[in-house]
Amino acid sequence: MELLKQRILADANIYEGNVLKVDSFLNHQLDVFLLDEMGKEFKKRFSDSDVTKILTVEASGISLACMAAVYFKVPVIFAKKTEALNMDEDTYNTKAYSYTRSEEYIMKVSKRYINKEDSLLIIDDFLANGEAALGLIEIARQAGAKIAGIGAAIEKGFQKGGKLLREKGYKVESLVIVKSMENGNIIFD
Amino acid sequence: MELLKQRILADANIYEGNVLKVDSFLNHQLDVFLLDEMGKEFKKRFSDSDVTKILTVEASGISLACMAAVYFKVPVIFAKKTEALNMDEDTYNTKAYSYTRSEEYIMKVSKRYINKEDSLLIIDDFLANGEAALGLIEIARQAGAKIAGIGAAIEKGFQKGGKLLREKGYKVESLVIVKSMENGNIIFD
Repeated sequence: MELLKQRILADANIYEGNVLKVDSFLNHQLDVFLLDEMGKEFKKRFSDSDVTKILTVEASGISLACMAAVYFKVPVIFAKKTEALNMDEDTYNTKAYSYTRSEEYIMKVSKRYINKEDSLLIIDDFLANGEAALGLIEIARQAGAKIAGIGAAIEKGFQKGGKLLREKGYKVESLVIVKSMENGNIIFD
Repeated sequence: MELLKQRILADANIYEGNVLKVDSFLNHQLDVFLLDEMGKEFKKRFSDSDVTKILTVEASGISLACMAAVYFKVPVIFAKKTEALNMDEDTYNTKAYSYTRSEEYIMKVSKRYINKEDSLLIIDDFLANGEAALGLIEIARQAGAKIAGIGAAIEKGFQKGGKLLREKGYKVESLVIVKSMENGNIIFD
């Protein structure tokens, strides 16, 4: 997606440990017009997929999932990472590891919101090692739901997630794939 | 806002400890069409306010803030609650207490995204004791930014937050105000 590539080249920063910082438009400050275009692009790429719900995980995936959901005309469900009084006790849940937070966490989805009739589009801001996507796939498995596909804003092509998920047979659509970011130069695939 | 009242009466559940559970449409599963209408309503209510950015806090405020931002044509910034490698070290930050999580947390916003030129609309799903809003106001104060107003989807009128914020002189707009929810009956103001 050319618009996103240009924005990354203009505004992203690279930090130690392969961190691609896009918090000026994607996951801290949010450019809702860019996100809207990205939502539209997901709809184009999954136009022949049957999608009943979009599944993401808090917090960075929520904005993009919502913008896409408007085009798919379906609800969003975001998996929760933390305990809260207002969370159902009856949940699908699984462990996942966050590299940006250097910690394992449990993601949970209330059993009331996904079931075996569902065909889920998984959406997230980044696809790197695939931890979050694999966690959401596990939640879908527990629910007996189908995976319509996996959409990421930015895939780090030099990490294993995209390859792993495609090898498992999932339709993975990343709006941009970063092939390398050595020496501060971002090269797209 | 009649549409939201009707949805609450149809789908909300009341749990012990004055918990109003709206996770089937507002903060776990998200009805993006309802959220879009709510965003439009915020624009109507703050039509004569100068808003440069919408400020919220992860995770439940993000979807509503984004939907509203489309109408205000401004970016969203969501305060982060957790440490992450991709977070700036130079932040505005403050402590707040979460009643739904029974814990104190630190909310942070990168200094790069708010400054003294900004006029911020604070948006969140709930206004109860006002903890989150007061935290975001403190962050705005640190940045020298103005507060254009505070918008909540659901205000619990029987808790102190709304009164407190209005007494401080802020323009507070809640799309619905729940006056009481005793014995399982939700009464609106």
